This record gives sequence, C-alpha cells and structure tokens, in this order.
Amino acid sequence: MIIAFSGGVGGAKLADGLAAVLAPELLTVVVNVGDDFEHLGLRICPDLDTVMYTLAGLANPSTGWGLAGDTASFMAALERIGGETWFHLGDRDMATHVERTRLLAGMSLSEVTETFCRRLGVRHAVVPVSDDRVRTTVRTDEGLLSFQDYFVRRRCAPRVLGLTLEGADSARASERFLHAMNHPQLKAIVFCPSNPHLSIAPMLAIPQVRACLQARRVPLVAVSPIIDGNAVKGPAAKIQKELGFPVSALGVADLYKDLIDGFVLDVCDAELAPIAPMPTLVAQTLMRNPSDRRNLAEAVLEFASRLRKP
Amino acid sequence: MIIAFSGGVGGAKLADGLAAVLAPELLTVVVNVGDDFEHLGLRICPDLDTVMYTLAGLANPSTGWGLAGDTASFMAALERIGGETWFHLGDRDMATHVERTRLLAGMSLSEVTETFCRRLGVRHAVVPVSDDRVRTTVRTDEGLLSFQDYFVRRRCAPRVLGLTLEGADSARASERFLHAMNHPQLKAIVFCPSNPHLSIAPMLAIPQVRACLQARRVPLVAVSPIIDGNAVKGPAAKIQKELGFPVSALGVADLYKDLIDGFVLDVCDAELAPIAPMPTLVAQTLMRNPSDRRNLAEAVLEFASRLRKP
Repeated sequence: MIIAFSGGVGGAKLADGLAAVLAPELLTVVVNVGDDFEHLGLRICPDLDTVMYTLAGLANPSTGWGLAGDTASFMAALERIGGETWFHLGDRDMATHVERTRLLAGMSLSEVTETFCRRLGVRHAVVPVSDDRVRTTVRTDEGLLSFQDYFVRRRCAPRVLGLTLEGADSARASERFLHAMNHPQLKAIVFCPSNPHLSIAPMLAIPQVRACLQARRVPLVAVSPIIDGNAVKGPAAKIQKELGFPVSALGVADLYKDLIDGFVLDVCDAELAPIAPMPTLVAQTLMRNPSDRRNLAEAVLEFASRLRKP
Repeated sequence: MIIAFSGGVGGAKLADGLAAVLAPELLTVVVNVGDDFEHLGLRICPDLDTVMYTLAGLANPSTGWGLAGDTASFMAALERIGGETWFHLGDRDMATHVERTRLLAGMSLSEVTETFCRRLGVRHAVVPVSDDRVRTTVRTDEGLLSFQDYFVRRRCAPRVLGLTLEGADSARASERFLHAMNHPQLKAIVFCPSNPHLSIAPMLAIPQVRACLQARRVPLVAVSPIIDGNAVKGPAAKIQKELGFPVSALGVADLYKDLIDGFVLDVCDAELAPIAPMPTLVAQTLMRNPSDRRNLAEAVLEFASRLRKP
C-alpha cells in the first residue's frame, strides 16, 4: 500500500505511473485542494480533476489539464455574452464542475471525487487531502492575489513575496487520507514531482496531515520537480527563486529535509546527489510517455523499499 | 409603440415578426417567467431565452428553442459522470445559464436580460413580466409536478387537473413592463400565439399585470395558438381538453373574452370567426418562415389599429 501526494500535471503523471504498477487497492493518491476556487458560481478543483482525468486516461496530452479532444463552444458563447473567460473551461470539463457544485450541497468533496472516479473508470483511490476549505493566497509585489488570479489570470507574472494558506490551520485531513495513513499494509509515502510551495506545502500546512507524516512508520520519498535548474512545467523555479531558495533539485531537497527519508533527482542532476542531506536516487524523472511514468514509479518504489524506516 | 406578451416558441415567432416591422423603440416583448426553474444549480429561463435567441437570429430552427448549431458535449460528459440529463442544455446555451446565474447575485432578471440582449444584438426590448419568482406548478393525476418536470421530464404525459402559479400573488410587474404600459405612445397590446394556460395565464396571474391590462387605453388583441383544433407545437390542445375547455380557437377566444378587444384566428378556422364573442381577424397564423412572421405581424397591427379602444 502506497500513498502518493500530488498536485496537478507533474504529480498526476507519476500518480499514473504508480497506478500502472500497483493494484487499485494498493494506491491512494492524496491531492492538493489549495488551488480550488469558486468561479462562475462553480466549484473548480484543478488538481483533483487533473489527477482524475490523467488516471482515467482522459487528460489532454498537450496541456496536461482538461480533457483530450474537449471543445470550446461554452467559452466562445460566454465571451459573446460578456462573461469572464480568463479561466478556460472546456465543454465536457464543464460537466465535472457543474455536477460537483451541485453534489457538494449534500456530499463531501471526497464523496464527490469517489463518485466521479467510479463513473470515469478510475479504480485507484483519488482523495482530496481535506474536505474542508483550504485556499492558497499569493502575496505579491502587486498585492494579495487569490491563487488562480495569480496563476492563470496573471500567468504567474507578479513577484511572489510569500504564500498564505487560508483555512489550513483549522482544516481536518480527509477521512480517506487518514484511513490510508493508518492502513497496516502501508509501505511508503511518495511526494510526486509537484510544486513544493504551491502543491505540497498547502497539504503539509494542515496540522493533522503534518502530524500524520511526522508520526509515520514508513519511508517518505520526494521526487524533485526541478530538473537541471528548471521546472518541467509551471512556476516552481520562478517561485523557488522569488522566495529566496536555491533553484535546483538540492533547493527542493532542502525544503523537505526535516520530513523526508529519501530524495529522487533527475539524471541531469546526478552531481548534486552526493551533497543532498538525505539518501538519494538518481533516475530519469522527466516523464514523456506512459513508459517513463511506469519506469519512474517502479524506481521510486524500489528506492523506498530499500530505505530505513524513519 | 406595441407591447407583445409571449411565451416560448410560437410567441417568439410573432415577436420576431413584430421586431421585423417595428423600430426597436416601438416594441417591448413581455415574457413569461412561470417556466423558469433551477436546474443543476443554474437559473434557467426557457421563454426568455427562446425570445432572445429568436430575435437575435440565433434560435435553432428545428426545435424553436436552444441555439442553432449548438453542440452536446456537456450533456454527453454529464451523462458519463452520472448527472441529470433529462433537460437538454447545449454547450453554447450553457453560457447563458451560467452567466445569468452568476449575474443574478447582483442584478435583476430584467437587467441580466437587457445585458444579454445588448451583447447578442437584440435591439428591441425583451423584458421578463416580473423580476420576482413565479413558478407554474401542475396538478396532475400523478400528483403535483413542477412545470419542467411535467413538461420536459414527463413530456406532458400526466393528465392536467389544474395549474398553480406559485408566487404570482405577491410578485410585482417588472419596471420595464410598467414603463412600456405607461408609455404615452402605446398603441396596442398583443397576446402572441402562446399557450393560454402555461404562457399567458402565469403573466395575468400577477395582480399588477392584470390591473394594468384592465386599465389599458389601447386595444388588446390575442392570436390563437390553436389552429384547426390542434396546437402548432406543445401541449396547448391537450391541456385545453384536460381542463375542460373546447379544443378550438373559439375555446381560446372564450378564455380571453373578458380581457381582449380582438381575436385573430387562422384561415383554417374562418368558419368560427362569426361566432366568436369579440371582433375577429382571419389570417394565416401558421408561421413557417420569416415572411410569414412579418405578414402576421403586419396583419395583427393593422387589425388592432382598426379596433375601438376599450
């Protein structure tokens, strides 16, 4: 039994690799909800959807988010009547947001996610880290921005001064996450190659989640989202720099050093492995195709199995 | 200056004909809101949308409702994740419902409708009869059904025992309607060929609307939605029968007899004209194309201009 912590696109790829090599009952993907927001009256959960669509084999391969082959009639019509179009919502993707918003009136986010996964044929558990409201807010040189305002509307242009995780202090971990953490067969925990500040930190900011991780009896391994000083996708490098951390796999290792037992860096960064403050694995972490995802998943699991328990 | 009362498809066709022969400042189309409902968390206003789309030249010519060339990706995806699909919502059409629902948090339905009409290039005034909540409820042999439950989900199959117009008693007429009614240049009022029970009655059930019509100083003309004992579209004939009224143009004239000054029946029903309880015009009321709409509009306006004021 493995728990994988994931944000959006990069994390979803490794989660998909893990799903390819582990039976459904042996993997729980725990997903960030700090990116979630309300838009056009709808509850939008970008990371949950990306993981769900990726594991369902429905993700748009060129963007990583959204649905493959989705159309944009809704957006075109919305523009015509003067609506807000800065956040793209495909026609099929809209069904997820509309139905989730409706179901949330009587269900938890965990239950809604489970329902959708079942309908989409996702057999591995995909669970929000919390059913409570946690919202990443970005302090920037242009003022306080809600996460999607910063990330999508402003395309990460403002300089980040800090991040605030609204609601994290009082949020509870989801029951499904706690169930997986307490599973007697749990063998390892993996931080997927997601943005440490935007995807992993919002989960760790929930006291119960952090406490569970600190009390764990299995190895915790993180995979670097920074390769050769750059993020594969998204603003991980830019934010790492703006927050004053070294923009390298080592900089990421450093962020996690009090928590993790092992760190996976890319073959490009092999020379950093010896100076990392924890055991390392050098592997091909860039996932260009399903086979890369599986290979990385297998390498990470094998690495974790060799690590001392904390 | 003309006021036209309209429900959905049939009414929208005559409203479109009137818009073709009258300058924008000379026509106000007052639209039923009794069919409006909340579905999937969205406010849906079928009659307003049908009138708006028809006047914008965007209506689906084969159904009469919805947008021409609209696609069904949203519905297909909604079905896949287990959502309710009995009420069809096209991908482009969705933009109207999502944006309206959002705007209604800070605007009246009249303001939202005006905004959308401006964006869609509709220059004639389209106004909801009321900004308040009025909901047609159908008492049937299978129990009480909300209007769209009866009309769309059950396809008008249950036998109608009566109609209840929830909220009508306390609803106020919209300001734009009152403004048009009080316009010094008002020349006539037209009931478009809409269902008298489902489209016109819910408007008349608003005390202020009925009082305005009773106090009018201009002729009020109704166009029969029943031709040769049948409705052109929809359940007008079935409901007329189930409620115990004669299923004929004359039956409709009878319903309106205390209110209207003139009645327009189809050439098929010419033999009924002499026995109608008010002045009549025999005209081609079936509107198969834009030219039919214009011709009927012109005939109705000419007829109204010849009638005595009440």
